Amino acid sequence: MQNVALNKTVPNASAATFDLSVDNVVFGFDGEKLQVLLIRQGLPGEDMESDRFHMAVPGDLVLPEEDLDEAADRILSTLTSLKGIYLKQFQAFGAPDRVFDEKDKEWLTRFRPNPDRRVVTIGYYSLVSISEYRPKPSSFASRAEWCPLEDVPRLAFDHNAIIESGLQRLREDVLQRNIIFELLPQKFTLGQFQRLHEIILGKSLDKRNFRKNVKRMEGVVPLDEKQEGVLHKPAQLYTYRKPD
Amino acid sequence: MQNVALNKTVPNASAATFDLSVDNVVFGFDGEKLQVLLIRQGLPGEDMESDRFHMAVPGDLVLPEEDLDEAADRILSTLTSLKGIYLKQFQAFGAPDRVFDEKDKEWLTRFRPNPDRRVVTIGYYSLVSISEYRPKPSSFASRAEWCPLEDVPRLAFDHNAIIESGLQRLREDVLQRNIIFELLPQKFTLGQFQRLHEIILGKSLDKRNFRKNVKRMEGVVPLDEKQEGVLHKPAQLYTYRKPD
Repeated sequence: MQNVALNKTVPNASAATFDLSVDNVVFGFDGEKLQVLLIRQGLPGEDMESDRFHMAVPGDLVLPEEDLDEAADRILSTLTSLKGIYLKQFQAFGAPDRVFDEKDKEWLTRFRPNPDRRVVTIGYYSLVSISEYRPKPSSFASRAEWCPLEDVPRLAFDHNAIIESGLQRLREDVLQRNIIFELLPQKFTLGQFQRLHEIILGKSLDKRNFRKNVKRMEGVVPLDEKQEGVLHKPAQLYTYRKPD
Repeated sequence: MQNVALNKTVPNASAATFDLSVDNVVFGFDGEKLQVLLIRQGLPGEDMESDRFHMAVPGDLVLPEEDLDEAADRILSTLTSLKGIYLKQFQAFGAPDRVFDEKDKEWLTRFRPNPDRRVVTIGYYSLVSISEYRPKPSSFASRAEWCPLEDVPRLAFDHNAIIESGLQRLREDVLQRNIIFELLPQKFTLGQFQRLHEIILGKSLDKRNFRKNVKRMEGVVPLDEKQEGVLHKPAQLYTYRKPD
């Protein structure tokens, strides 16, 4: 009976085995533009500027007993020394031809126990204020650094596409959730608030509509205070109080 | 050099191998409530009502050369004969203890080539009008049927949690995207439109606020027509035109 099931009725008795990895797209905001955290795949002591291997987002294989969220956290801190960053799963990437570049194949041969095995990766993203996070490379990262989104080079595997998908999700979440407040000072003007939206969404917004929308946002509270150190027309300050 | 990298610097040379599966959460709307498509894991000819195996959402292993979206499509149609349903990836589920029930372990032993291997599954969801989709079981599904959300029994593996997560994503997407229009007739009243939102969101909505929000929705267009066959106060009809 078991063989009948396996050979005749069940279509995928010959199912593949997969390696599973996590890739972390960490967006950072420096007050002016969006950057993304990249590593150079190499070992300390190798030529740091060598382009023998690609730059990449910090990612690695999931361990046998490890939950996915745990893996994202461990891998980010192992490669970049950044800890305590909230990472949110956003998409699995599993195209069978994710690895096509010879450089990437060479890297896998050096660093992976089963370099030919198909790897499906789970993408995580985060959004942090750059000033609070100074990456330091370790493990197989020979560099770990912020890179402005518009300067991101050709990356390893499908990492450029992973960043693009992460950015789309970030944009959706900014409109829908409250993650943007992580990046604002505790007291902010509506001008700062609008500018930050514009940077993340990558387009300018109509001031009147934006202010109308702000009025409907839960948690954005006007303060009885104005900007200091501004001579001409100091703007009113607002703060964010998490709704119950 | 390679051994140095693998044994000393790279933390996960002993990475696990995984099976990868896809699980499809197909929500159906029957005009009154939300249902979900379930299968009984068994073979035709087995006792169809046997509770030896759990009910489950339609899912199976991804094939060696298959893309994830392709797999979702193939698996849904193989198990339930439903074709042409747009499935959207929403989350990967990878807790190491996803399989804990003896019934599920027995099922894996019968139907999977490597029953002890850790399986990470990618969740897909969809939302369809039930009247257009009549499931028919095949492959290892001995039944395939719609089940009202409130009557869903204890399912295989973590499938109850997968449905719950899919429902959350559906609710977010209903608020943000236009998927809800798939379920409305071409001409609809604002009463029908509000009721459908209430069913999916699982809560009642304030009529005045709802109508204010509708006015801001792109694509919802009032028609120069009223409901027919209604004697008392026929309501105005609206339609949805996809914004450019």
